[in-house]
Amino acid sequence: MAAAWMAHCGVSTRIVDKRNTKIFCGQADGLQCRSLEIFDSLGFADRAWKEANHMIEICMWNPGTDGVIRRSDRIPDTIVGLSRFQQIVLHQGRIERFFLDNIKKYSADGIQVERGVLPEELEIDESQVEDAEAYPVRVKLRVLTEEEATPEQQISGSKISDGIFRSNLMVGDDEEELIRKSKAREGETEVVHAKYVIGCDGARSWTRRALGFELQGEATDFIWGVMDIIPITDFPDIRMRCAIHSADNGSLMVIPRENGLVRLYIQLKEVTPDASGRADKSKITPEIIFGAAQKILSPYKIEYKYCDWWTAYQIGQRVGTRFAAHNRVFLAGDAVHTHSPKAGQGMNVSMQDTFNLGWKIALVAKGIAPRSILPTYESERRRVAQDLIDFDHRFAALFSGRPAKDVMDAEGVSMEEFKDAFLKGNLFASGLIVEYAAGCLVADGTSGEAKKLASGLPLGMRFNSFKVLNQACARPWHFQERLKADGRFRVVLFAGNVLNEEQKGRVQRFCQAIDAPESFLHTSGTLDGGKRAVEVLTIHSAKRVDTELLRDFPDVLHPFDEDKGWDYNKVFVDDVSYHEGFGDAYKGYGVDPERGCVVAVRPDQYVGWVGELEDVEGLQKYFEGCLVLGKAKEVAVR
Amino acid sequence: MAAAWMAHCGVSTRIVDKRNTKIFCGQADGLQCRSLEIFDSLGFADRAWKEANHMIEICMWNPGTDGVIRRSDRIPDTIVGLSRFQQIVLHQGRIERFFLDNIKKYSADGIQVERGVLPEELEIDESQVEDAEAYPVRVKLRVLTEEEATPEQQISGSKISDGIFRSNLMVGDDEEELIRKSKAREGETEVVHAKYVIGCDGARSWTRRALGFELQGEATDFIWGVMDIIPITDFPDIRMRCAIHSADNGSLMVIPRENGLVRLYIQLKEVTPDASGRADKSKITPEIIFGAAQKILSPYKIEYKYCDWWTAYQIGQRVGTRFAAHNRVFLAGDAVHTHSPKAGQGMNVSMQDTFNLGWKIALVAKGIAPRSILPTYESERRRVAQDLIDFDHRFAALFSGRPAKDVMDAEGVSMEEFKDAFLKGNLFASGLIVEYAAGCLVADGTSGEAKKLASGLPLGMRFNSFKVLNQACARPWHFQERLKADGRFRVVLFAGNVLNEEQKGRVQRFCQAIDAPESFLHTSGTLDGGKRAVEVLTIHSAKRVDTELLRDFPDVLHPFDEDKGWDYNKVFVDDVSYHEGFGDAYKGYGVDPERGCVVAVRPDQYVGWVGELEDVEGLQKYFEGCLVLGKAKEVAVR
Repeated sequence: MAAAWMAHCGVSTRIVDKRNTKIFCGQADGLQCRSLEIFDSLGFADRAWKEANHMIEICMWNPGTDGVIRRSDRIPDTIVGLSRFQQIVLHQGRIERFFLDNIKKYSADGIQVERGVLPEELEIDESQVEDAEAYPVRVKLRVLTEEEATPEQQISGSKISDGIFRSNLMVGDDEEELIRKSKAREGETEVVHAKYVIGCDGARSWTRRALGFELQGEATDFIWGVMDIIPITDFPDIRMRCAIHSADNGSLMVIPRENGLVRLYIQLKEVTPDASGRADKSKITPEIIFGAAQKILSPYKIEYKYCDWWTAYQIGQRVGTRFAAHNRVFLAGDAVHTHSPKAGQGMNVSMQDTFNLGWKIALVAKGIAPRSILPTYESERRRVAQDLIDFDHRFAALFSGRPAKDVMDAEGVSMEEFKDAFLKGNLFASGLIVEYAAGCLVADGTSGEAKKLASGLPLGMRFNSFKVLNQACARPWHFQERLKADGRFRVVLFAGNVLNEEQKGRVQRFCQAIDAPESFLHTSGTLDGGKRAVEVLTIHSAKRVDTELLRDFPDVLHPFDEDKGWDYNKVFVDDVSYHEGFGDAYKGYGVDPERGCVVAVRPDQYVGWVGELEDVEGLQKYFEGCLVLGKAKEVAVR
Repeated sequence: MAAAWMAHCGVSTRIVDKRNTKIFCGQADGLQCRSLEIFDSLGFADRAWKEANHMIEICMWNPGTDGVIRRSDRIPDTIVGLSRFQQIVLHQGRIERFFLDNIKKYSADGIQVERGVLPEELEIDESQVEDAEAYPVRVKLRVLTEEEATPEQQISGSKISDGIFRSNLMVGDDEEELIRKSKAREGETEVVHAKYVIGCDGARSWTRRALGFELQGEATDFIWGVMDIIPITDFPDIRMRCAIHSADNGSLMVIPRENGLVRLYIQLKEVTPDASGRADKSKITPEIIFGAAQKILSPYKIEYKYCDWWTAYQIGQRVGTRFAAHNRVFLAGDAVHTHSPKAGQGMNVSMQDTFNLGWKIALVAKGIAPRSILPTYESERRRVAQDLIDFDHRFAALFSGRPAKDVMDAEGVSMEEFKDAFLKGNLFASGLIVEYAAGCLVADGTSGEAKKLASGLPLGMRFNSFKVLNQACARPWHFQERLKADGRFRVVLFAGNVLNEEQKGRVQRFCQAIDAPESFLHTSGTLDGGKRAVEVLTIHSAKRVDTELLRDFPDVLHPFDEDKGWDYNKVFVDDVSYHEGFGDAYKGYGVDPERGCVVAVRPDQYVGWVGELEDVEGLQKYFEGCLVLGKAKEVAVR
């Protein structure tokens, strides 16, 4: 994800990975709504959407009074109306493939993952960290042999791929061992001088240890197994996401996957941690795990002939003490938060970390934004990580607990409480309720003015999507589709009813002001291709057929190019379409359809500022706080 | 398209093309609804949909009483509700790319286009044509040098790519010339013995001439120019599809394209055919064409700095006398029908020709279908070609005519009549009203029984699409998405209300009958992967949550596999979805939601047979008429 930002923004970048292949099976699988919105902003949500299994419904199974499991509830897997996407499931290897293809497509200098390469040393020259032009981070890299870079798999009497080597129950296969082994190949090292380094190197992050940072938190006693199989079963809901609590044999979650696969998360009640707090890995085999699943699912029968992958883990919730060193070296993903996988959060929150961080580093590296925006990474994402850990703590306890026999059974988990937690959990898991606090990138909303102007666009939250039509060609678009991840901030002008004379005047005055030579529009830096760092998009609320792009909208809203003529892709209308209904965007965004308002949107689609059309000064101040503005544009005498 | 069928059905195939590259610009661009449905059945409609420009609205411009053009009407470009797709525009080169990728993906033996290869001789051994196992067609191929295979472009004082070398105004660059030139390279020839040959080699088809067949019809006096430019203009509807009739300067059609391009079709009133009926090509330059456009668009201004492609053509409507020789060598596309390009039909009708033909040849070549289905290609597609020519004749005359000054102006074209023709034309152009006549592949509907059972699924027309939910996982699908182009016929069981005891009995008896050892289901041939040539899909109308796949539906509707368990992808329900509304499929298909019916669907998605659940004999007879059925399955004693 971080590399995708660099490719889209044109920043010279290297990625190294100690593994010598990408992931082919197993690992993470769930993709939440927000991740799909992000994929869309990068350009490949459609590939994931097409290949994935779509999880539509969650079925809750609990023991009846006779102790036999039965379906007690059905709820939608994704809360209706939250996003234009819903949760889907696809294995991590495909998602890595989409990223590799996307990076290749957008990267001018061909960013590629260098595999089998390991960092050995990391140094930050503290005297230079505040110099925007400096390269204060020194990283020593070592190239591994193929043998060194191939992880040794623990084949427990089974020929199937297993993932236990990356499970937190294992201690082997770490970097020290690899470095020790590779000493024989002296000289195959390289020193890289970097402006910025991001460690996305997992729960046992080498970068984190090199910085001396820690994860805080604890492991629980809950041990779970995971299997990806093609099930042969009479269980009726095997293609639904199921949460199954058996009376005495533990819990099981069913995650239907692509290509007929089903992932089972299986509580291993018979495997417990020893005195050191760590479970005995020798006890964990596919047979043990599957036997537990069969007991939980009884009286239904389940068998399999094909297993794609299996692993086991001990639930632990930990969050990093610090996310960045001198705002030069950053940690993201499992390197700063670990938790149980069952809410389908791991890959999502991790990708969202670097989706938050990548554009900030890119814009700072290119001199478009000041270094002062970088601390917002830790302030924004650490809170998300903490919320995730708290959520996971509650959720995992409810999931791993024994179901209550009746209302008097205080030690048991109430199934009503569990369902309620699941519903709330889905909202959290969607990634859509993340709200970044006020700072240089998010205006302070305490006055309540922003909420009054655009109640559907809360400051610090992602810009929601409704369908609008292109004014020039009447094509319907989800407005979020126009907020591409190209590193640009956007000013969205809700122009209101432009056919009203008074409002037309307000729009004209706004346009005149932002078109002034000293405006952020003409003084912000440029990205590759010469595009300024701020783009203006318009949504108006008059009738499409009563308005015309060139006649009713000031030039700055559809700029003229000497070679390509007018820009027909910047003005949209909240009106009914022939084939896709009415998006009702003004209503959805909570904006007055007569008077409109102005919204500034960050490159990652989060709402940064909301104000009246008259508050160009406030808008200018917002950009002064997060962009490096140059001198006023020289204007030719007309 | 033909090769795509062969790839999907696993038929050994070669494609030769005398050109040495694929198309990079210009040529055809419009994709109609039916073509997109076909692309979806092959697996790549999403790629076209994503890259293309979507044409939403048609604007009609006509002279007012003052002679100045003004917008008189707006109509939707695609009739609302016809299809889940709408007309889009994307240049032919991209579509060729999607086909090449699709063929590569599905072809087991790597079918590739052999470029710069020319047929020299074609012979059919008539004594063998009825022997299904024979290879009675002998084709001699010659490999061209790169120079020979590169068409000489006519660069009329312009450095831009032009398409005039393929225009019907040119006579050079034909096969005889290429063959003459290549004589120097004696010996670089190859003889191929083929079961079947398809000539998709354009309006001057070598194959057609080798067979001695002709195109019948005439050229008109109307000369048109075409330019793909990025326009710089104040014309307000430049991003709409526009039909513009000027008072005295001729007509113009605007086709907005991808990447800011706009295609202009421009009537050249100043260029007229000479005594031989052919226009003087020396008069046709980009300057002449664009000058005509500027006059038509006046008082609006139009200029350009970038031109992607240009060409000119003389409207001619011709249709082939015969489409096949001995049902061994077939002609398709421009080789058997030529017409004006403005209705966006050329590429579409041509692709639909081989979409009709390909599976027939594939199934016959594999011994799954008898040779007796092959004559349906000519009977089904010649009528379409004739309808197209008739349509084009009327449409082109209306388009090329001078607008009537008033109701008394009998020589002028009434703009009301033109609009009406445009609306009807859009329905025709969509490709969705094609109706194949009764024959061995389409049952006779004269009794009216089929219409009574499924009024929304007329015999001989394509199986319309409504959203249904997968019974096992609640995922909404457009039902047509389940009718993939894999060579299989399908029986769609509208199972009705399976919770009604009487109806349940009807469904059980139907299933028992089609599961009998001698049924088409067990006696039809097998495609690659061992799949029988007929698949059964079910749509029922009871509530999803009240029904269960394994409990309420006989096994034959969700067959069991030793390795993969039950098939969860064959039973669907007409019910409301959480996120995508209610498809109302029974209503759309016009089927009684209590009693249902049975529909047989051809591999190309056309409705072949409709009957009651009790009419298994009729269904069996339908398949006996179009498939080679083997001996009864041996059934193990239970």
